[in-house]
Amino acid sequence: MNRVFADLPVTVFEAMSQLARDNNAINLGQGFPDDPGPEDIRRAAADAVLNGYNQYPSMMGIPELRQAIATHYGHWHGVALDPMTEVMVTSGATEALASAILSVVSPGDEVIVFQPVYDSYLPIIRQAGGIPRLVRLEPPHWRITEEALRRVFNAKTKAIVFNNPLNPAAVVYPREDLELLARFCQEYDAVAICDEVWEHVTFDGLSHIPLIAIEGMRDRTIKIGSAGKIFSLTGWKVGFVCAAPPLLRVAAKVHQFLAFTTAPNLQVAVAYGLGKCDDYFLQMRKDLARSRDRLARGLSSIGFPVIRSQGTYFLTVDLSPLGLNETDEVFCKRIVNDYKVAAIPVSAFYEEEPVTSVVRFCFAKQDQTLDTALERLSDAV
Amino acid sequence: MNRVFADLPVTVFEAMSQLARDNNAINLGQGFPDDPGPEDIRRAAADAVLNGYNQYPSMMGIPELRQAIATHYGHWHGVALDPMTEVMVTSGATEALASAILSVVSPGDEVIVFQPVYDSYLPIIRQAGGIPRLVRLEPPHWRITEEALRRVFNAKTKAIVFNNPLNPAAVVYPREDLELLARFCQEYDAVAICDEVWEHVTFDGLSHIPLIAIEGMRDRTIKIGSAGKIFSLTGWKVGFVCAAPPLLRVAAKVHQFLAFTTAPNLQVAVAYGLGKCDDYFLQMRKDLARSRDRLARGLSSIGFPVIRSQGTYFLTVDLSPLGLNETDEVFCKRIVNDYKVAAIPVSAFYEEEPVTSVVRFCFAKQDQTLDTALERLSDAV
Ligand SMILES: CSCCC(=O)C(=O)O
Ligand SMILES: CSCCC(=O)C(=O)O
Repeated sequence: MNRVFADLPVTVFEAMSQLARDNNAINLGQGFPDDPGPEDIRRAAADAVLNGYNQYPSMMGIPELRQAIATHYGHWHGVALDPMTEVMVTSGATEALASAILSVVSPGDEVIVFQPVYDSYLPIIRQAGGIPRLVRLEPPHWRITEEALRRVFNAKTKAIVFNNPLNPAAVVYPREDLELLARFCQEYDAVAICDEVWEHVTFDGLSHIPLIAIEGMRDRTIKIGSAGKIFSLTGWKVGFVCAAPPLLRVAAKVHQFLAFTTAPNLQVAVAYGLGKCDDYFLQMRKDLARSRDRLARGLSSIGFPVIRSQGTYFLTVDLSPLGLNETDEVFCKRIVNDYKVAAIPVSAFYEEEPVTSVVRFCFAKQDQTLDTALERLSDAV
Repeated sequence: MNRVFADLPVTVFEAMSQLARDNNAINLGQGFPDDPGPEDIRRAAADAVLNGYNQYPSMMGIPELRQAIATHYGHWHGVALDPMTEVMVTSGATEALASAILSVVSPGDEVIVFQPVYDSYLPIIRQAGGIPRLVRLEPPHWRITEEALRRVFNAKTKAIVFNNPLNPAAVVYPREDLELLARFCQEYDAVAICDEVWEHVTFDGLSHIPLIAIEGMRDRTIKIGSAGKIFSLTGWKVGFVCAAPPLLRVAAKVHQFLAFTTAPNLQVAVAYGLGKCDDYFLQMRKDLARSRDRLARGLSSIGFPVIRSQGTYFLTVDLSPLGLNETDEVFCKRIVNDYKVAAIPVSAFYEEEPVTSVVRFCFAKQDQTLDTALERLSDAV
């Protein structure tokens, strides 16, 4: 069997969700909301299933959705994209990432990734024959420094894979860090594969800045987005890839043999959703910020040192001041067993030198779910 | 960019569908029906979108669907599968194939494939570092011979990728050929990756025999199926992988990083569909056989030498007796331009020594579509 995959563990999100089910626990681990998602968007999908087209659509995505993606990013980020040559629809951001990485990376290429790292990046880079170079980010600010970049960029650097807003750290990177990255990508002629699935989930007036919008990056960035994250319908698995034609053309060749195409009924509904007025997205942020605050307040009052979340469905707590004498992993196993609340240990996002004192909680849940979880955790520390 | 993919053409199915659109032609190329698909199954999906679960399901598929797949294959093929450890749901058969191939094949492994070959197999094998060994099959019978297998199997053989019923040849392989293949797989300790997406689409009382049901193959076969093909909803992209636990476990590790999971609403509907009574599937075959006969009769009466189709949505015609002095590819370009009917040249399924005289037509269309296509083609030869 293929050694890249044979010895991998089951992804921590699935494993923790399974533990949650086994323990009948509240699942604040894997990132998904516990409400049904926007009704009008679901209705648009239901209509399309009943009255619309259910056969193979174009492998690049249905034209309405490609147009909607281009219009949406033009409006929100001022990035002008040609829907026919610069936008592709995929079966979720996971497939988008695999298509992007496999299209860019050849054997021997070095690829820079940032720890904490989402768990699909490294296996796919290795499957491509790439050599990961890890930059270690640290709580509580998780900032990117010139010194760290200087250590890993070199003549063999082919690409970076960069997640912003950063899961699990819940950081929305400021322009300064993006410009630093952009400078290095240009100096070393690297492609930036940007996992920006959390782009709409930002708080406190912070805005996500896509790396593709930073000067000099337009033609060397592959931008990845996710309708599941934008509309809180994580099971739909409708992702987007946006890139200049020479990059997108090759990613499309991989996509055609990894998944080929994506359910047209869901595509129709996502195209409808992307056209919603600004208020919809701003209200979604407000609602999620309220949930963040509810969980943060509750965890603080129990005694957890909460690190402020700037975006994503997640907030983190730092166990180190608590003197628990246990790693994040042990802590997560203990709370799912003893308190029936599942969370994700941030050390699972490190391949080497893990940060072992930070735990991630998902707050994209109904008030009652959060309150019950808080009640259960009340004497956990 | 990655050389495995950078220089590939757009898949012939997409390219021909695009040509059909550009020429306003009837599309008998890419294999999809032009009716809306079973209404009750679509209704089940619409209900699930509106009233069911739209967040991440288990990466292995929802339990009801895994159970339905196991029950379905038990009933139709007498293959007993454990739904929890031997069944996985994927985002279509394309993703299933990619997950299976990438899980089994390591650099330097030889992989036997049969020409005509579906166009995703070779790039994925090469991405895995595998070395394809091609067996050339020929019209009109496309049978597998011991001599041909003797030439390619050897100590480096890791796997075969085998499509049955065979697209585009429309052959349903007899037990004899399957036993021959099984004998070689066992002698050389090879895994059989079986693309059996057309398993339900067989005619004239012929039944598909899954290779996994042949003696000695239970533990070395990865069986791939497709709800899109079974229910004529090709856009849904719900595929299945069935294999013994040691094989499935690794395929699941690839799947978790290629696509991770598949829309739960569509999974619910497919689970419902797989439970339909035998008559449903037998009637579907009868309806498609009627369409096959309509197109075959029409093409014959115009003067096309039709090769009998035993299964799939396709029939083939052999141009060689016509003395046209043009290849299948030139012929297909000519008829889409001049007669506004798109078909697929079978040479596109060969990497070397192509058969260049056979053209594939999709008959899974409404009577009127077929009749109009026939009218347009009436003086094509
Ligand atoms: C693909 S499952 C993981 C979902 C997610 O983004 C998370 O929980 O971090
Ligand atoms: C994935 S598009 C091709 C569909 C099909 O099976 C065919 O037309 O052969």
